[in-house]
Amino acid sequence: MKKTYLMTPGPTPVPPDVSLAMAAPIIHHRSTEYSEIFEEVRKDLKYLFQTENDVLIFTSSGTGAMEGAVTNMLSRGDKAIIIRGGKFGERWGEICESYGVNIIPIDVPWGKAVKPEEVASCLEADREIKAVFMQASETSTGVMYPTREIADIVKKYENTLMIVDAITGLGVFNLPADTWNLDVVVAGSQKALMLPPGLSFASISEKAWKFAETSNLPKYYFDFKKERESQKKNQNAYTPAVSLIIGLYSVLKTIKKEGLKNLFNRHINLAEATRAAICDMGLELFSVDSPTPSLTAVKIPSDVDGARVVKILREKYGIRVAGGQGDLKGKIIRIAHMGFIDEFDIISTIFALGKTLSEVGFKLDTNKGISKFMEVYND
Amino acid sequence: MKKTYLMTPGPTPVPPDVSLAMAAPIIHHRSTEYSEIFEEVRKDLKYLFQTENDVLIFTSSGTGAMEGAVTNMLSRGDKAIIIRGGKFGERWGEICESYGVNIIPIDVPWGKAVKPEEVASCLEADREIKAVFMQASETSTGVMYPTREIADIVKKYENTLMIVDAITGLGVFNLPADTWNLDVVVAGSQKALMLPPGLSFASISEKAWKFAETSNLPKYYFDFKKERESQKKNQNAYTPAVSLIIGLYSVLKTIKKEGLKNLFNRHINLAEATRAAICDMGLELFSVDSPTPSLTAVKIPSDVDGARVVKILREKYGIRVAGGQGDLKGKIIRIAHMGFIDEFDIISTIFALGKTLSEVGFKLDTNKGISKFMEVYND
Repeated sequence: MKKTYLMTPGPTPVPPDVSLAMAAPIIHHRSTEYSEIFEEVRKDLKYLFQTENDVLIFTSSGTGAMEGAVTNMLSRGDKAIIIRGGKFGERWGEICESYGVNIIPIDVPWGKAVKPEEVASCLEADREIKAVFMQASETSTGVMYPTREIADIVKKYENTLMIVDAITGLGVFNLPADTWNLDVVVAGSQKALMLPPGLSFASISEKAWKFAETSNLPKYYFDFKKERESQKKNQNAYTPAVSLIIGLYSVLKTIKKEGLKNLFNRHINLAEATRAAICDMGLELFSVDSPTPSLTAVKIPSDVDGARVVKILREKYGIRVAGGQGDLKGKIIRIAHMGFIDEFDIISTIFALGKTLSEVGFKLDTNKGISKFMEVYND
Repeated sequence: MKKTYLMTPGPTPVPPDVSLAMAAPIIHHRSTEYSEIFEEVRKDLKYLFQTENDVLIFTSSGTGAMEGAVTNMLSRGDKAIIIRGGKFGERWGEICESYGVNIIPIDVPWGKAVKPEEVASCLEADREIKAVFMQASETSTGVMYPTREIADIVKKYENTLMIVDAITGLGVFNLPADTWNLDVVVAGSQKALMLPPGLSFASISEKAWKFAETSNLPKYYFDFKKERESQKKNQNAYTPAVSLIIGLYSVLKTIKKEGLKNLFNRHINLAEATRAAICDMGLELFSVDSPTPSLTAVKIPSDVDGARVVKILREKYGIRVAGGQGDLKGKIIRIAHMGFIDEFDIISTIFALGKTLSEVGFKLDTNKGISKFMEVYND
């Protein structure tokens, strides 16, 4: 007998009732039944994104909506700031370069957060910058960026958009699109939304729609204007992933019932308790200054092989965590605490991590970590 | 009590065991477990596409892979023939135009098939044409195009690709990518593959990969080269729709077990019996010359409101068929017989169609149609 625990920062576990809802017979996407569900989904997404504007839905992974944010907002030869402090920051840069957008990278050491003043001076130095692309939460490093502070700077520039990849941010911590002036917010289904991967989202501000009017980059499948016209009629421009939309309907109702405040508090509480436990058991956090509430990146002691830790956790204890990416391969593990993950999942993970590290010869005090977790976590 | 029958040409019904397989706890897309499944899926897709080349998988609707076929094969200013005899032919043209490809349309009356000699003379007249874009089966009109004959013409041109939207063709009738020299074949999950929408596919010939080497159109999410590199390692470049891949694994095993020959015969048999029944009950086919085995487009008698027929079928009998699109709105209904649809589903649909038309005052002989169906259909 082996139970498995999916503790990776995406995909995250899907609640069983949602899995069953998605297993219902498929309905036609041009039916009234579908449109009624889709109308509710659109309404509830506005609640989740905290916006009065449309939130567009695409059948793709989050990267698809990221590409749309570039191709619908910018034009050939435009300049854009890319905040690069991890794999997903790099992705913004790659997408822009694929479409002939000139990138001005602000490189941030992996594990650190970007300083808002760096963005400010960059924008001040070049008034032709059309957009700032960043992550709310850099999944590859477990760092949260100061989205609000940067948005406060960007909003002063009439000709510059604030474009946020919130794939592991949305539904985890507060990111109100309208009050913070986030012009485009991109998200995906397989993180705090507790769904299988396959849907991506983009909220678009009024300011951003003006950019869309003049954008001359080519696009078709991720055409925001075309999709907005369809979705206004509670339809999709192209055949949507119907079963995932049914699941989305279900999770959004759950989220609305819990309420955003409770949702954010739960995640922040779980994250704080996890970090406290990790430190008290004798391990180090990869990001000390600005950890994200979505996941915790834990440093693997230098004399231990991180890949082996991930393997033992999985094979012996049925616990799947993510390792490091790029230069961080073998050096960190990443434990998610977003979506359908509760305190007992985290406790189990901490226990297993302690046992695993003991087995590979690293001394630590797991019980102390667990005690700390229970002390910090208040439900 | 009301049973429902999904008889639309996409989405089509999902077999219950496949729905349940997709409801299993989600697995991580970078795990060995996933890679093992994905390796099988890749192998079985080659069987289905009848190719030795890679078949790429994308998380998107079929339109996404269509876009990729344009952006990965062509360059700005290239010329391409578009066979336009329905909504999906128009889509090829729209995608090309979005990316600055010059289109040479061959307009075909809706309901008719393109004549291969038209393509031949077009190619002969302009040696700079880089691709012919067509449908194997035009879903909007229920017409099958002469794919093999056109491919035989295109293959003579070293600098021209044969690009086929087989979204309602693949797995329905014979379309061997390699032996027929189909350079790019695009498909989707929600037709003969019996899955929910959300996955698209593209097989790419060696000749086509050479075009990909020089293509200068921008792309990122639908980047064939990048995706090929990942998929060779049994990984996806971006987070895939994991649950749909699990479903795909399951349906491909079923298809392999049935065998392509049986699969095609079943569809052709069902289509022939359906058409015979429609005619014998006193109705007319929309496409007489070249109907596709995927679906049957039935003319609605001119004094009957087609939208009302669709509505009665749905509301009174629980049978969902598709109406006409564009100019055909209200004038035809489309009944699918691909994927997880059997002879009893069709018999039920014919009965309900007969009852519905009688109710709106059109005289016809349903029993004669049913008898004919049973005579023609041999299982």
